[in-house]
Amino acid sequence: MSRRRKKTQRKHGLPPGTLVFTGDRHTDVPDIVLVQYTESDTFMQSAREMAPPAREMAGVVWYDVRGLHHVPLIEQLGRQFGVHTLALEDVLDIQQRAKFEDYEDAVFIIAPALTFDEATLEVQHEQIGIYAGKDFVLSFQEKPDDTFASVRDRILHGNGRIRKRGADYLVYALLDTIVDHYYLVLDKLEELIDNQEHQVLTAPDESTKRSIHHLKLQVLALRKTVFPLREAVNAFSRSDNPMVQDSTRLFIRDIYDHTIQIMDAIDTWRDVLNGIFDLYLSQLSFRMNNVMQVLTIISTIFIPLTFLAGVYGMNFQNMPELGWRYGYYAVWGLMLLIALLLLHLFRKKRWL
Amino acid sequence: MSRRRKKTQRKHGLPPGTLVFTGDRHTDVPDIVLVQYTESDTFMQSAREMAPPAREMAGVVWYDVRGLHHVPLIEQLGRQFGVHTLALEDVLDIQQRAKFEDYEDAVFIIAPALTFDEATLEVQHEQIGIYAGKDFVLSFQEKPDDTFASVRDRILHGNGRIRKRGADYLVYALLDTIVDHYYLVLDKLEELIDNQEHQVLTAPDESTKRSIHHLKLQVLALRKTVFPLREAVNAFSRSDNPMVQDSTRLFIRDIYDHTIQIMDAIDTWRDVLNGIFDLYLSQLSFRMNNVMQVLTIISTIFIPLTFLAGVYGMNFQNMPELGWRYGYYAVWGLMLLIALLLLHLFRKKRWL
Amino acid sequence: MSRRRKKTQRKHGLPPGTLVFTGDRHTDVPDIVLVQYTESDTFMQSAREMAPPAREMAGVVWYDVRGLHHVPLIEQLGRQFGVHTLALEDVLDIQQRAKFEDYEDAVFIIAPALTFDEATLEVQHEQIGIYAGKDFVLSFQEKPDDTFASVRDRILHGNGRIRKRGADYLVYALLDTIVDHYYLVLDKLEELIDNQEHQVLTAPDESTKRSIHHLKLQVLALRKTVFPLREAVNAFSRSDNPMVQDSTRLFIRDIYDHTIQIMDAIDTWRDVLNGIFDLYLSQLSFRMNNVMQVLTIISTIFIPLTFLAGVYGMNFQNMPELGWRYGYYAVWGLMLLIALLLLHLFRKKRWL
Amino acid sequence: MSRRRKKTQRKHGLPPGTLVFTGDRHTDVPDIVLVQYTESDTFMQSAREMAPPAREMAGVVWYDVRGLHHVPLIEQLGRQFGVHTLALEDVLDIQQRAKFEDYEDAVFIIAPALTFDEATLEVQHEQIGIYAGKDFVLSFQEKPDDTFASVRDRILHGNGRIRKRGADYLVYALLDTIVDHYYLVLDKLEELIDNQEHQVLTAPDESTKRSIHHLKLQVLALRKTVFPLREAVNAFSRSDNPMVQDSTRLFIRDIYDHTIQIMDAIDTWRDVLNGIFDLYLSQLSFRMNNVMQVLTIISTIFIPLTFLAGVYGMNFQNMPELGWRYGYYAVWGLMLLIALLLLHLFRKKRWL
Amino acid sequence: MSRRRKKTQRKHGLPPGTLVFTGDRHTDVPDIVLVQYTESDTFMQSAREMAPPAREMAGVVWYDVRGLHHVPLIEQLGRQFGVHTLALEDVLDIQQRAKFEDYEDAVFIIAPALTFDEATLEVQHEQIGIYAGKDFVLSFQEKPDDTFASVRDRILHGNGRIRKRGADYLVYALLDTIVDHYYLVLDKLEELIDNQEHQVLTAPDESTKRSIHHLKLQVLALRKTVFPLREAVNAFSRSDNPMVQDSTRLFIRDIYDHTIQIMDAIDTWRDVLNGIFDLYLSQLSFRMNNVMQVLTIISTIFIPLTFLAGVYGMNFQNMPELGWRYGYYAVWGLMLLIALLLLHLFRKKRWL
Repeated sequence: MSRRRKKTQRKHGLPPGTLVFTGDRHTDVPDIVLVQYTESDTFMQSAREMAPPAREMAGVVWYDVRGLHHVPLIEQLGRQFGVHTLALEDVLDIQQRAKFEDYEDAVFIIAPALTFDEATLEVQHEQIGIYAGKDFVLSFQEKPDDTFASVRDRILHGNGRIRKRGADYLVYALLDTIVDHYYLVLDKLEELIDNQEHQVLTAPDESTKRSIHHLKLQVLALRKTVFPLREAVNAFSRSDNPMVQDSTRLFIRDIYDHTIQIMDAIDTWRDVLNGIFDLYLSQLSFRMNNVMQVLTIISTIFIPLTFLAGVYGMNFQNMPELGWRYGYYAVWGLMLLIALLLLHLFRKKRWL
Repeated sequence: MSRRRKKTQRKHGLPPGTLVFTGDRHTDVPDIVLVQYTESDTFMQSAREMAPPAREMAGVVWYDVRGLHHVPLIEQLGRQFGVHTLALEDVLDIQQRAKFEDYEDAVFIIAPALTFDEATLEVQHEQIGIYAGKDFVLSFQEKPDDTFASVRDRILHGNGRIRKRGADYLVYALLDTIVDHYYLVLDKLEELIDNQEHQVLTAPDESTKRSIHHLKLQVLALRKTVFPLREAVNAFSRSDNPMVQDSTRLFIRDIYDHTIQIMDAIDTWRDVLNGIFDLYLSQLSFRMNNVMQVLTIISTIFIPLTFLAGVYGMNFQNMPELGWRYGYYAVWGLMLLIALLLLHLFRKKRWL
Repeated sequence: MSRRRKKTQRKHGLPPGTLVFTGDRHTDVPDIVLVQYTESDTFMQSAREMAPPAREMAGVVWYDVRGLHHVPLIEQLGRQFGVHTLALEDVLDIQQRAKFEDYEDAVFIIAPALTFDEATLEVQHEQIGIYAGKDFVLSFQEKPDDTFASVRDRILHGNGRIRKRGADYLVYALLDTIVDHYYLVLDKLEELIDNQEHQVLTAPDESTKRSIHHLKLQVLALRKTVFPLREAVNAFSRSDNPMVQDSTRLFIRDIYDHTIQIMDAIDTWRDVLNGIFDLYLSQLSFRMNNVMQVLTIISTIFIPLTFLAGVYGMNFQNMPELGWRYGYYAVWGLMLLIALLLLHLFRKKRWL
Repeated sequence: MSRRRKKTQRKHGLPPGTLVFTGDRHTDVPDIVLVQYTESDTFMQSAREMAPPAREMAGVVWYDVRGLHHVPLIEQLGRQFGVHTLALEDVLDIQQRAKFEDYEDAVFIIAPALTFDEATLEVQHEQIGIYAGKDFVLSFQEKPDDTFASVRDRILHGNGRIRKRGADYLVYALLDTIVDHYYLVLDKLEELIDNQEHQVLTAPDESTKRSIHHLKLQVLALRKTVFPLREAVNAFSRSDNPMVQDSTRLFIRDIYDHTIQIMDAIDTWRDVLNGIFDLYLSQLSFRMNNVMQVLTIISTIFIPLTFLAGVYGMNFQNMPELGWRYGYYAVWGLMLLIALLLLHLFRKKRWL
Repeated sequence: MSRRRKKTQRKHGLPPGTLVFTGDRHTDVPDIVLVQYTESDTFMQSAREMAPPAREMAGVVWYDVRGLHHVPLIEQLGRQFGVHTLALEDVLDIQQRAKFEDYEDAVFIIAPALTFDEATLEVQHEQIGIYAGKDFVLSFQEKPDDTFASVRDRILHGNGRIRKRGADYLVYALLDTIVDHYYLVLDKLEELIDNQEHQVLTAPDESTKRSIHHLKLQVLALRKTVFPLREAVNAFSRSDNPMVQDSTRLFIRDIYDHTIQIMDAIDTWRDVLNGIFDLYLSQLSFRMNNVMQVLTIISTIFIPLTFLAGVYGMNFQNMPELGWRYGYYAVWGLMLLIALLLLHLFRKKRWL
């Protein structure tokens, strides 16, 4: 929850339209990979710092930028493909929610990629911006990991239908890759929730409530991320932008179904986590009840007996019982009787 | 909640459009039953592994496949009836939510069938995919049990209106069979909820909270399943696909009413289960109160008396009371008086 | 919550379209009352088992059937007035939610009538089906009580506008009678809720939580019943079916307003009952606090005193205080001082 | 919550369309004030029991009726201005929700006026019905207080724009007066909520939970009243009834904004009151913790000491320590040591 | 929550349309700054009390008024630019929700500016009204701080695109400045929430619950403010008012995205704060459990031992054990045995 703060520190007060990268530097120089392909041909070139020029050929041009802190690079690509300033600003401002914007003959999508950090047990976001026209796709990744390697491989090796279709299908493939990664995060979270549930049912301890709270925060953060993505994918699938072909729409619809399924899972987990927390609280109550019962049983049995011992410990000169021959044994008998009676009572009350 | 994990393990990283079965093998070889019928005539043939060829005759052709792990079979049927690849993928991916898709002259429905496992007290899902055109119906079942036996019997024996109507009515009959099974699951759950309520009211114990939590999870899972089914059936009933006749629409509407009724029941149960859990917690509180009262009453009575006994157990040389003739009896009297006073006080406070 | 179970036991597995009564027999033979009327003329005849033939006359024909287990009777009326099979099925299946269906020149309404059973303190449902065309109304009641006596009287005595208007107004009058009965049930429930609130505020005991839970269940059940009725009445008021005249629409709108008002009341009660339960829990907490305070005050005062008495009850040979002349009195003084100090402390902490 | 009951007692069983006043008599004879005005001229006459005839003059005629139990008066006005029977019924039935009805060339509004009863701390409702056409306004008030005195004054003294505009503006002015009074009630409630919050934070006692519960009920009742009013005012502002001029619509929109603001406040208070109740419960828990800590500290310190004293109070003949010269002082020292150790432990656990 | 009250005190009873300032005087005399600009030229003049006349020149005229208690000034500007009376009233009534109104050739926006008061830890509102036509903008600020200094600087220095565009872009720039300040408030609140969470997890104390409650109130208040602003900005972005150019609409859409993001954050915080409060309560329960366990362990061990000591402190003449040579040591041994047994039991129950 601490990334927001940086935004205002760096950007507050600047006129809108100024291009400023609001994230952390994750790499020294950005990596740029250029891929061009037709159904029969492919070309690939990678560079650092500035984008390599595209070759003169038909088909789709795809620039994949990893690392956003080098603003001139973004401006160069923006000028080259006529990207709207507001879209460039959004690409650089890593605080954006997922969104879909229709430009005249291009579409612009912001989609967060998720990974799960096993060390902190936190969901990590990476903002990915995709700007695509009829024959080009620009993808801007905040961090240097090669998220789209599998898509590039499919293009280069000609797997699946990707080379037979246009830029819109490439956008679909990129989004599909992003959403596919969500399932890995979901699996991790599901595993943690299952473990938590098991722990609450078997051995809840002081750290349990923090872990549940932590999981709740992760699920809340996930919800905040996925909900706008669902809307964005829906808008994309319904867009009448000329760059989206009807045959691709069905595929985008398929991603939409996935985002709905993910939202379903998240909403269910919210309820499940609330249920686990309630369970934890009732576990505490139950345990308290047990502790109190033990205290009450022990106290209730020995307090009268101790009183009796106290009575015969008094030093009155005239206490006839003290002189009785079997007085001591009689008292022991009386004490035993009282104890047995009380035990019987507790059993009847089902405290034992 | 563990089935999802398998998906990502098996399918993650493959290009979209690859046909992979994501479920468990429930049988060695899939069973395929071919039924063909007109109003006056029927033909049935069953096979394993590959689909038998349909006879040359008018009327409706219905292939019912049980077991989905044999991908070539699915591909064969898909090619034969021109099924869209995405639909075939959905048939094989058993993680799908219920959905309805309109293809040009065919409809595709995913609907989960439910059973209740008496051993684990868990609701079990089986994914069923139905792809139907003007004169054919393909049904794909994940598991080998013969869910649609009753529909087949009605066709073969000519019961009801089924043979007089087209493929759309057969789809209705299949969906109706699926939804009818839901009521059996609902009855089971209702019985369990009623039992749970009774147990909370009479003898809540340590396992109670787990049982309620377990029931909550079942109801949540059920909700997650039925909600998209309701939407799918609604979309089906409103579809203007040429394969759906107006006279059948009323029947589909009837299934829609059932799904609404089921959702109503589920939503009510959610509230009921929350109410039962609150009741359970208040039961714990009430019991704690009782335990504390017993402890307090016993302690409050005997603590002063024990103190008094302690006083006259002191060994001071100059303690005139010790020499009094009836000192001992006077102390007993005083103790009795104190005890009676305190008992009176507790009765006034309604603790007794 | 036990009526549903019967449905599946009796109807599960039968082909759709089979007429089966799914309720309990509330009477031996069904009562049928035939009423015919024009503005100037009325005719009434009652029968058992089979419907009497209607007289040849203009105006409205109304068959009121009480008791649904005699299926041939229902079939006879269905054939005579051309009722759709699905409507007949719904009439006989007493598990239906309220609904409104538009048939070509007729409307079909399912509306539950409510009564409050003073013995079990439970809301009882009776399903009433109304099928009406331009000049006839069929009403099917599950139970034998004469719910619509007042409407019949108004027709026979010519009270109000009922005889001046058509079949649509009669349907309105029947629905209005049903909804009017809801207010009686609401009054009863409101009284019970008020009593419960009073009891929680004055003398909550062990049974309180069960009573609140019971009321919650009643309110939930009521909500489940009234919500679809509101939708059905709304649909009726907006229906462009030729049998509904514009002048009647305003009256139906009036029933719609009543159902909204009833839903408002129910939703408010839900919140009120949750508030009462919270109050009850806080009452328990408060009481526990009081009990604990008494225990703590008594213990905290006497435990140090008893310790002191114990010290001077020790048998050391060399304990100079024991030989002091006023040692005993000094100890009493010390004890008094300690007690007063502690009492003062408790008063400062506002525990007394 | 007791006003509803009367309705059913008085009206249940009567045919719809019968005019019956369902409220309490708040006055002996109703007051009727007739006001007529054009931009330049005004005329006013007041009467009791029956409405005085209007003068022959252009402009707007306004009958303001206070007290509704005299049914013939209502019928007289209804006939004179052609009011629909259902509207008259609604005027007399004081259980109505706020509503707006479009009649052919007239509008009908039910709006509850609110006052705050300082004695019972309850929100009081008065139902006000307004029926208005192109050149007349009828206002029907349940109670005798002169709610609309300020509007009448503005007309008679020609303040503001009221005399320059038509009947629709007068309706606006009446509604504005009603809604203005809401703010007084809101202020009172806000003050009570602020006081309650302060009390919970400083000195919560047994009555606190009842007061919070009482405030919750008031806010719920308020919500139930204002919500339909908002809808009614919205419908009024969008109505295309010929009696509503476009220039007035903006003013009605202004009232609509007020009702939204009021709903906002109410919804916020609901959350605030829930928060206060949670605070109260946590206050109880915290206090309980404190009480328990005191008990535990005192008990834990003295119980071992008392045990030690008990040991040396035993009467064994062979107990060497008893004969030691400084045995008694050694025991005191040991006791002091134990007490200090335990105090140190408690300080480390932050219990002190 | 105390500002509302003033409204009714000052304004209640006045006819609608009377201009009254309902806020506090924050300054003696209002400041007015006039800025005029075209793409190439700018002119600026500031005054107090009355607005300076605008120069004869093309381009945009912007009057920025700071301090609203001088009603004649508002009336002067209102007459000069033909502002609707209701808009002027809204400008002066500082209780307004954010709203957007379309006038024939002008738009009117109410937007609250927020600051965070570090002393009281409360969110402070300042109401800002903006009324703008094709070539003029009037901005009315409640308080004297120069909120729009940065916008004025951008105009005077020609930074960004502001001078190249019309009055609609200036309105956008003003709104953007207002919404930008929200992020500062959000950052502060986020920091407080993070601190609170940390405190609950490490060292919850008596003040914790008040702080959480206070934060909840701030978030509720924020929500009440931002929600209508989001609607207003949305309406502005969709307005077809002639003064809004299409090219500006995209920018307004950008503010809309920000308001959505802010609402997302607020809604998440609500859940987070509820989670923190639950955590706090469970922390209390857990601590209570610990306290009770310590009490129970100590009591349960020493109560039987003290009883035993009491027994051998009795003064019966015939108590053989007292004469045994090693009786005293045997009792010590027995006591040690009992203590060890109980400790072992507690370890098995995981209480130690």
